[in-house]
Amino acid sequence: MYESDAGLLAPGRAGSPAEATTGDRAFLQAMLDAEAALTRAQSACGLAPAEAGRAVTRTADADGFDVRDLALRARSGGNPVIPLVVDLTAAVPEDARPYVHRGATSQDILDTAAMLVASRTLATVLDDLERAAGEVARHAATHRDTQMAGRTLTQHAVPTTFGLKAAGWRALILDARDRLSAVRASLPAQLGGAAGTLAAFSAFSAPAASPVAEERTDGQEGTDGRREVDLLALVAAYARELGLAEPVLPWHTLRTPIADLAGALAFTAGALGKMAADVLTLSRTEIGEVEEEEGGDSSALPHKANPVHATLIAAAARRAPGLAATLYGSLAAEDERPAGAWHAEWEPLRDLLRLVGGAAHDGAALAAGLRVVPYTMRENLQLTDGLIVSERLAAVFADRIGRARAREVLAAAADRAHSETTDLADVLFDVLREEPELAGLDLAELTDPTRYTGCAGPLTDRALERR
Amino acid sequence: MYESDAGLLAPGRAGSPAEATTGDRAFLQAMLDAEAALTRAQSACGLAPAEAGRAVTRTADADGFDVRDLALRARSGGNPVIPLVVDLTAAVPEDARPYVHRGATSQDILDTAAMLVASRTLATVLDDLERAAGEVARHAATHRDTQMAGRTLTQHAVPTTFGLKAAGWRALILDARDRLSAVRASLPAQLGGAAGTLAAFSAFSAPAASPVAEERTDGQEGTDGRREVDLLALVAAYARELGLAEPVLPWHTLRTPIADLAGALAFTAGALGKMAADVLTLSRTEIGEVEEEEGGDSSALPHKANPVHATLIAAAARRAPGLAATLYGSLAAEDERPAGAWHAEWEPLRDLLRLVGGAAHDGAALAAGLRVVPYTMRENLQLTDGLIVSERLAAVFADRIGRARAREVLAAAADRAHSETTDLADVLFDVLREEPELAGLDLAELTDPTRYTGCAGPLTDRALERR
Amino acid sequence: MYESDAGLLAPGRAGSPAEATTGDRAFLQAMLDAEAALTRAQSACGLAPAEAGRAVTRTADADGFDVRDLALRARSGGNPVIPLVVDLTAAVPEDARPYVHRGATSQDILDTAAMLVASRTLATVLDDLERAAGEVARHAATHRDTQMAGRTLTQHAVPTTFGLKAAGWRALILDARDRLSAVRASLPAQLGGAAGTLAAFSAFSAPAASPVAEERTDGQEGTDGRREVDLLALVAAYARELGLAEPVLPWHTLRTPIADLAGALAFTAGALGKMAADVLTLSRTEIGEVEEEEGGDSSALPHKANPVHATLIAAAARRAPGLAATLYGSLAAEDERPAGAWHAEWEPLRDLLRLVGGAAHDGAALAAGLRVVPYTMRENLQLTDGLIVSERLAAVFADRIGRARAREVLAAAADRAHSETTDLADVLFDVLREEPELAGLDLAELTDPTRYTGCAGPLTDRALERR
Amino acid sequence: MYESDAGLLAPGRAGSPAEATTGDRAFLQAMLDAEAALTRAQSACGLAPAEAGRAVTRTADADGFDVRDLALRARSGGNPVIPLVVDLTAAVPEDARPYVHRGATSQDILDTAAMLVASRTLATVLDDLERAAGEVARHAATHRDTQMAGRTLTQHAVPTTFGLKAAGWRALILDARDRLSAVRASLPAQLGGAAGTLAAFSAFSAPAASPVAEERTDGQEGTDGRREVDLLALVAAYARELGLAEPVLPWHTLRTPIADLAGALAFTAGALGKMAADVLTLSRTEIGEVEEEEGGDSSALPHKANPVHATLIAAAARRAPGLAATLYGSLAAEDERPAGAWHAEWEPLRDLLRLVGGAAHDGAALAAGLRVVPYTMRENLQLTDGLIVSERLAAVFADRIGRARAREVLAAAADRAHSETTDLADVLFDVLREEPELAGLDLAELTDPTRYTGCAGPLTDRALERR
Repeated sequence: MYESDAGLLAPGRAGSPAEATTGDRAFLQAMLDAEAALTRAQSACGLAPAEAGRAVTRTADADGFDVRDLALRARSGGNPVIPLVVDLTAAVPEDARPYVHRGATSQDILDTAAMLVASRTLATVLDDLERAAGEVARHAATHRDTQMAGRTLTQHAVPTTFGLKAAGWRALILDARDRLSAVRASLPAQLGGAAGTLAAFSAFSAPAASPVAEERTDGQEGTDGRREVDLLALVAAYARELGLAEPVLPWHTLRTPIADLAGALAFTAGALGKMAADVLTLSRTEIGEVEEEEGGDSSALPHKANPVHATLIAAAARRAPGLAATLYGSLAAEDERPAGAWHAEWEPLRDLLRLVGGAAHDGAALAAGLRVVPYTMRENLQLTDGLIVSERLAAVFADRIGRARAREVLAAAADRAHSETTDLADVLFDVLREEPELAGLDLAELTDPTRYTGCAGPLTDRALERR
Repeated sequence: MYESDAGLLAPGRAGSPAEATTGDRAFLQAMLDAEAALTRAQSACGLAPAEAGRAVTRTADADGFDVRDLALRARSGGNPVIPLVVDLTAAVPEDARPYVHRGATSQDILDTAAMLVASRTLATVLDDLERAAGEVARHAATHRDTQMAGRTLTQHAVPTTFGLKAAGWRALILDARDRLSAVRASLPAQLGGAAGTLAAFSAFSAPAASPVAEERTDGQEGTDGRREVDLLALVAAYARELGLAEPVLPWHTLRTPIADLAGALAFTAGALGKMAADVLTLSRTEIGEVEEEEGGDSSALPHKANPVHATLIAAAARRAPGLAATLYGSLAAEDERPAGAWHAEWEPLRDLLRLVGGAAHDGAALAAGLRVVPYTMRENLQLTDGLIVSERLAAVFADRIGRARAREVLAAAADRAHSETTDLADVLFDVLREEPELAGLDLAELTDPTRYTGCAGPLTDRALERR
Repeated sequence: MYESDAGLLAPGRAGSPAEATTGDRAFLQAMLDAEAALTRAQSACGLAPAEAGRAVTRTADADGFDVRDLALRARSGGNPVIPLVVDLTAAVPEDARPYVHRGATSQDILDTAAMLVASRTLATVLDDLERAAGEVARHAATHRDTQMAGRTLTQHAVPTTFGLKAAGWRALILDARDRLSAVRASLPAQLGGAAGTLAAFSAFSAPAASPVAEERTDGQEGTDGRREVDLLALVAAYARELGLAEPVLPWHTLRTPIADLAGALAFTAGALGKMAADVLTLSRTEIGEVEEEEGGDSSALPHKANPVHATLIAAAARRAPGLAATLYGSLAAEDERPAGAWHAEWEPLRDLLRLVGGAAHDGAALAAGLRVVPYTMRENLQLTDGLIVSERLAAVFADRIGRARAREVLAAAADRAHSETTDLADVLFDVLREEPELAGLDLAELTDPTRYTGCAGPLTDRALERR
Repeated sequence: MYESDAGLLAPGRAGSPAEATTGDRAFLQAMLDAEAALTRAQSACGLAPAEAGRAVTRTADADGFDVRDLALRARSGGNPVIPLVVDLTAAVPEDARPYVHRGATSQDILDTAAMLVASRTLATVLDDLERAAGEVARHAATHRDTQMAGRTLTQHAVPTTFGLKAAGWRALILDARDRLSAVRASLPAQLGGAAGTLAAFSAFSAPAASPVAEERTDGQEGTDGRREVDLLALVAAYARELGLAEPVLPWHTLRTPIADLAGALAFTAGALGKMAADVLTLSRTEIGEVEEEEGGDSSALPHKANPVHATLIAAAARRAPGLAATLYGSLAAEDERPAGAWHAEWEPLRDLLRLVGGAAHDGAALAAGLRVVPYTMRENLQLTDGLIVSERLAAVFADRIGRARAREVLAAAADRAHSETTDLADVLFDVLREEPELAGLDLAELTDPTRYTGCAGPLTDRALERR
């Protein structure tokens, strides 16, 4: 029995749509799709018989190939396309054999397959992000005016609303969606041959004619303008067959598509990670302002409900930046195809797609099942006995007695409230009697945290307008 | 004498335009610009006297402040805005003091300053990228048909042209330019107050009226619709004063702008790093196909000219991904303002701006001074005694005698050429006499590396059309 | 006025001991120390007049050199040693000039300087770690039996003690100390000459004799055994002069010392980061179990005391891994001295030293000033109305009625306690009357969280025995 | 058919020993080993019947469990131990069921399993490193005096030997071996229960007695000293059963073992990466000084032999730092067990073990099969027409005519040699006739690169003495 991984260490993605689109079988199928598209494109351009394209397409089914055997045979050449071409060639009818992988280099196929896998995976990720954004929008609308403590550097600062917080989560999720959509639309096919010149595609004769003679007759030195134009058409046809973008240049060592994926995926992991970080904080036993509807089990503790979705998203957010860094690092690749920089991309790119795919799936579930507890939010808002509105009092007092004196008055009152464990409003009631300039202020209102949420509502409204 | 860094360990950026726009003084000036813009915006919105905005603006000159003293006093609160506000308040006329930093939080100022610094630095980076792209375009056009060995996994593979290689460098540089331009145009001002609700900006009364009374009369619960709308106008005015984009939401913990900068900057470092990697390879003593015009000195060796620009760019490309990873990692920030994630951004963001600024400057110089040696390129192309075109021969032979037999014939010929240290063409001349199906082939042409560059020319042309 | 950084964006290290030992001036001094030690060592080995060593040593004072000018002139050769050698040579008496930097390469000096800077900085870091460990030990001893909630996945799990938590912090700090001490003791001098063969040190004649003649007479091919042994002695003398370890081989591209520093420093940042993460959590407004004695100010909020030390440490812990990754990445360096991998080390190594130096300094201050609030810990322990001991009840019940039935009974009780907002103990009192097998259990004891801290005490004792 | 990975994208490790010890099945077996050891240890300490330990051990065979099913069921609780405990409990005889996982938390089992997997994998890695070191030592000894060009910043600098280069590779490999060995010997078992207090292990009664009564009679408040001592013995017994080190404290959030693995593994990847970087450079078509005996195939090019082992190692070296960074980042984990930091470790740790396992395996194969070409080394040494010894000439001339004049003479000679494309020695022959102070120098010797390798031999000898 061979060694394989079935997701045992990856609860963040086991069973997710992104897992299905990124597994070895999915990658193998994508490589076969690339090979088939290449032969079909050559058929379309008159560089192969029409039947060759059909024959390769019929054979290009991952179920007919042995993934593990390919993996082992990939070692000697350093990539899995080499043994795959051998097996695919053997599997097609004899007439079609010369047209398998004709003119291509391994990287043409593997890069194209990676783009197909990315495109297919991002489709599921985008679905999950839309779902997550929708659920979060619902929370933001429902809780537009649900006051809660705004927290900065872990401490209560001033009041805010859960609506504004949720609107912020949504803004990040939509930012992620926009970035991933843009990258997805730009993913290019790869075709260049050994060194990116497309030379091999014209080295073979077209089915009927002798290229040599042909080339010599046109009287050009070394290159044949008309043929070359054909080859650019071949690239276009190949991209069309695959539903990928047509590249301006072969990008064997111009890794913009990989870097763009890295950035957009790391961004998405972090964007979801923000929501997860807030959920982990707000669902703490002492805070209890939100909870995951179906909290996870614990192996030891019967009573516990853990914020599992948020935990798994948080783990993904921790891992994504390091993987993206490796991909950015592979931009600086020497020569026409590099020794190592390219090989270092394959697994990190897949890992990123999976991590983000799992996180988006968890994010949608988290948002859908999030229980919000306005009662506790309001209770926690009182925890500082009114200090959470000290900013407001400082401002209002400063208008009347100056900034410095206002700070003094407030600091003294806060100290007294703290030492007498009484409410700041009560202390201030006494204080105000001794400060004539402060007379007439409506303390009940000024010290009510729920009346000091500024533009939280309009900001939430404005953010929710975004589509 | 206090401790300061003057670039001793940073030859990649010492003296560069990006250094001037990212130094402590530049950052301090940007913070002061943010403070001044805030007061001016409040003046414009009727939240401060007109003179206050003018007074703060007049005082907001970095030369009037002690950077080191601010740095030391930043420790107790964890950020430099706190002492700066103290000093700035003291420095403005007494009437203006209440309007300094009024309603803002430290992060409003520091984030805005970071955006100003980024915007100013990217202006210089974009200039250098344009220069670099222009120089590289010149090389690509000049050497459109300069053949050289295409190298893959460090080995000669098939011929290519220097034009195509340079066109690839340019494509990456333009990709970097486009990504940086887009990010630059989107950089937003930051304004939210303590927890992003903008509440404090309305807590203070407008110069003439009592906000408390006002609020009570409008009969709304806790929030004042009209005033809030005003505050959104305040944000817009503030952004306008700064020449930055208006944010939809305060983004204290919605770090899209930082992440976008991280991605675009890491990309740019890698894009330039690709050119540097090629220059380092091609200028090796044994290869000698390019050299830096003003190669760097060596401390020990009188004869050596080192590829210093390429070396410094390569170093920047190695460092950028790790810094970007830290910035992506800060996306997952808890609460309304986080304890650590934000603080972890400041230096890495500046370091990235500097590294990329230095690399772009070096990249322009490298491209401008790159000496290309077509003669050596052509000589190196012969190094494998014709094997560099074996792909072509395999293709042409395969058309006539089948793929397997073609491989056999070529392998035998290559072995003989190798053992007799003779040219493949000579061996093949003998071989062809014994293979009737191969008769009539123009061996001189088929084995001429300079006649096998495929679409290198048209691809170069197409790539150079991009503006 | 030139651009310099004075720590404005670095409150985590401004004014710290590590800042003083890592600044440009400190680095410059270390380079000068290396140059002086090299000439002295050559004097000691008879390769230079005794006076030369003294003369260079006298001149090697950073105050006599212009850091900014060196920084700018470093650009052309890519490192600051090249202009420094020019200036140092000019500054010594004429007789000594031939013996400045004689035989060395820039990297000999810069690497050695980096080791000196690291060694000097680690001395201060180790002091701060000892202080931190001592303060933390005090907390652990004082609070050996201070019960508090043990929290897992953000939720109350079972009780623990603050003593055990603090003992864990100390264990990590001592682990960091041990790793840094070991690395510090191993830091080697660097001496190899241009390509690590030490050849140039024998190329120059000893003050009196002609090396050429000498070499020819000994009848060896190309190398002179006796002289070579001398050169190994030169390396030893050089290391001795510097107080650094003697290297077995020049390590221009054998970067074990850099990687060891990277690992130990990243570990230290993370070790302190664990303490900071706990302090940030436990000092949350809702939890309030610890607080920083001198909480930091806020620019906007008069009442707030922020956990600033913990915040700055947390920021350092977020940044260190990315910097260490860059240093590990530079291990894979080509040739005898690489183009970029080495240059990419300088600033990240210094940044790591500074970050960790600042974090250790903050860590000692944090530990010294940490206020622990046992009262709140005990209060929070009651927050789950007894559920925090459900694990214990499940175990005890399972012994009597089986695991499954025990879970059922407890789940029902917990639900009832939750819906009636009553204490689990009260509910269980009723339940137990209906379960004869559970009769006779001391519910008061079994449901008392303070009686279920397991081995927390002995574990704390054992951990504190470590020196 | 479920989704699994069989190594298709991982030629660097497919089929390697490290793959077999790190697969899902190996991890599952290690978790089962941990569970079995825990029950056996409890049997040994009188906390479970002897038969229970035997029964669990008999059942703890990975072949009896469904990896994919466990992976999917792991999602709800966020880790695979939770469903595994269910299945293992069901699989053991009824009498043993109460003793499965008794008192433990998921992390106890998963962390212990990770240590077992690490220990088993490192055993194979250490074997491969020993093999690699032995092969490299052979090269170093054989080529102790094989001269070659020393290269710095990509340019020929001064001569060196292949022996010294290989000795350096070996030094790094032995450094890696020493670090991995030390870490391996320190890998601890994990046992702490839900919050690291070991409380649950005493909550259950020993098979015969009632713990409750017992605890009450001993008159202690809340804890039972004697029992606790037993629990420390339980930890020791558990570690002994596993062949792992006994931990001083539970290390659920004291992640020294993980960080130590991260550092040592990243180091090893980089150490092997240095050798790979040199092989990639030296086997370039233009340099040709070494080649991999069994160069890899190319999918397109019949003639090419790629340095595949070096390429795969280089790829591993690029990926390891980012993974290690993630692990270092997880040190800063809040609470008694964290929400995310722990979960983020599992796959990166396994990936690192696999990458390094594969790289060590490739490293041994690379070293064993490396063909060294002294002839080409000597030829390349002549490429600069003598300039490679200009350092020596500068030194010898300086002794006679001063440093400045020596530089002038040499620069002029080098220019003339370059423009006349003649050898430097010939030019110097003329020059010396005009410089009386330089008369009598043995130019043939002084300009012979093979006579200027300094201490390369003795340094190689010294380095090879290390065991």
